[in-house]
Amino acid sequence: MAGKLWGVGLGPGDPDLLTLRAARLIGGADVVAYPALAGGDSFARSIAADLIPAGAREIVMDVPMTVERGPAQAAYDTGAAEIAAALEAGQDVVCLCEGDPFFYGSFMYLFARLSDRFEVEVVPGVTSVSACAARAGMPLVARNERLTVLPGPLPEPELRERVAGAEAVAIMKVGRHMAKIRGVIDDLGLLDRSVYVQRVGLPDEVVCKLAQAPDTAPYFSMILMNKGNDPWL
Amino acid sequence: MAGKLWGVGLGPGDPDLLTLRAARLIGGADVVAYPALAGGDSFARSIAADLIPAGAREIVMDVPMTVERGPAQAAYDTGAAEIAAALEAGQDVVCLCEGDPFFYGSFMYLFARLSDRFEVEVVPGVTSVSACAARAGMPLVARNERLTVLPGPLPEPELRERVAGAEAVAIMKVGRHMAKIRGVIDDLGLLDRSVYVQRVGLPDEVVCKLAQAPDTAPYFSMILMNKGNDPWL
Repeated sequence: MAGKLWGVGLGPGDPDLLTLRAARLIGGADVVAYPALAGGDSFARSIAADLIPAGAREIVMDVPMTVERGPAQAAYDTGAAEIAAALEAGQDVVCLCEGDPFFYGSFMYLFARLSDRFEVEVVPGVTSVSACAARAGMPLVARNERLTVLPGPLPEPELRERVAGAEAVAIMKVGRHMAKIRGVIDDLGLLDRSVYVQRVGLPDEVVCKLAQAPDTAPYFSMILMNKGNDPWL
Repeated sequence: MAGKLWGVGLGPGDPDLLTLRAARLIGGADVVAYPALAGGDSFARSIAADLIPAGAREIVMDVPMTVERGPAQAAYDTGAAEIAAALEAGQDVVCLCEGDPFFYGSFMYLFARLSDRFEVEVVPGVTSVSACAARAGMPLVARNERLTVLPGPLPEPELRERVAGAEAVAIMKVGRHMAKIRGVIDDLGLLDRSVYVQRVGLPDEVVCKLAQAPDTAPYFSMILMNKGNDPWL
């Protein structure tokens, strides 16, 4: 009988924000799988490190960070084949996913490759959006408000249109797009309604008003904006 | 010295989806506070029930579910005053919040009333959006896709415009707005890209295609839609 594939959300980075289910699954795993920067560290593994059993087998997917999608797809092809072999041998595989697996999560690439052949269960995780709002003390949406989640790499005209038409906004993956995004928000007169959070919950976390944010941001950084005038009152 | 107010997200309903931090804070609480339906049960308390210490003091806020905001605001005024008295007496207060405190969470009403006077820390939780996507096996957003979160009570023209302009959509609080929402999605030709989830993670959970969803939905119900053509591949 084939094993089961678990896609386990780890939350935004602080191991204390794992769910009870995630912690139990990882602690009991015989096989764990996770992505790593090609030739480098795995953020996912670092979040779960204290819970991974000493004897567990680890399947590492070395994913290159390239603009072209081919190399990353090839890495997930290879990883999916290795995971499939373990599943076919009757082993359960616990795949570690930063954040929430279905919210910009790398697990989606494995889900697309394996969910038609194997039993797959996803354990949701705390998103970085929720974590950043908590750390910034910024309520996001209440009552009948809308929330728009935008990736920072969007082209400037689309970003401008989407931010202008939104009520509350979370802009993910700010990184090298900081100047463009901050420019758009400033043009729209929303600078004083925006906060910046980088590497939430980690030792080098930064939380500040967007106006005071550094000019260059790491990949794991976010801008939150809320147009409401104390809308949660 | 005044106590500290914790706004603790409990996740969507399954106690197994509490974070490690939430579980620890609740398990060590001297005072817990939570909203309840006026004259009825507290969903928040039911999620955390097994963790609340036997001797803890419980501050219950009876919140009427009315369209007018005045009665609910009065209930939070009263609750905030009771919590403030405990904080002033030097006690920490752990406020239990369904889902994530700053994502349509009732804790925002206490935050607005108390955060200028007391130390407040928010512990983010798993949102119902993440939990519903996981249970439905529907990846939400990948790469440079946008996610739009809409409340079901939005007027039909606005709902239509927002769904039409979106890539991936989560529609919260479907409840008695099911006919309106399903009509809009059907008109836009998106019925076969939409799933329905009610009371995710609870014993009476329902997960099905939107076309097969019941005509009347409970308050805790959601529609997820993704226009992408396997966008996560």
